[in-house]
Amino acid sequence: MVQYPQQLDRTFGALADPTRRAVLERLGQGSATITELAEPFGITLTGMKKHVRVLEEAQLIATEKVGRTRRCRLGPHRLEDVHGWTEGYRRMLDERLDRFGELLERTKGASQ
Amino acid sequence: MVQYPQQLDRTFGALADPTRRAVLERLGQGSATITELAEPFGITLTGMKKHVRVLEEAQLIATEKVGRTRRCRLGPHRLEDVHGWTEGYRRMLDERLDRFGELLERTKGASQ
Repeated sequence: MVQYPQQLDRTFGALADPTRRAVLERLGQGSATITELAEPFGITLTGMKKHVRVLEEAQLIATEKVGRTRRCRLGPHRLEDVHGWTEGYRRMLDERLDRFGELLERTKGASQ
Repeated sequence: MVQYPQQLDRTFGALADPTRRAVLERLGQGSATITELAEPFGITLTGMKKHVRVLEEAQLIATEKVGRTRRCRLGPHRLEDVHGWTEGYRRMLDERLDRFGELLERTKGASQ
């Protein structure tokens, strides 16, 4: 289940902040400059730049310098790593429940 | 798509560390004391206690004091929040691709 741990660290870390998740949702509507991203959240340009850098390092977004502004858009990252790890974890929980169920059945059988 | 933001922050944050993910995978095999968890990772008890606290705050594990040791086991958290957010994000990406495809088709139609 442990694959590309560093990439997973970065992706999970990037998603652990409500502003960064909201930026991703905003960019789903179309590209935006850092100023356009900062405005609705009422945070400083410096603050938004930091969030943008974290998202870019996690390859969740791509940025491009256009004149004096930096335009941000969603990258090709489909959260395959998060999806893969989460599904693996849920499968493991299910198997555990199954084993527990079998154990209960056997205990019941033995006591009858 | 934004639901229970604080819980999501905690869950994503807890999963953003390879040791904490490995602890969850280890607890999938059965409960363990903090000493038993620390040993294979070669980290100090204090270090493992911190990881355990983060996992507990994210409700991913539950701990119980048994005599002088603290036993850890997986909690009932099935990562519904992570699963929900990730699926919503992937759906949004798909819809974007669909819109882009439609636009391409229309552009092609107009240029013919």
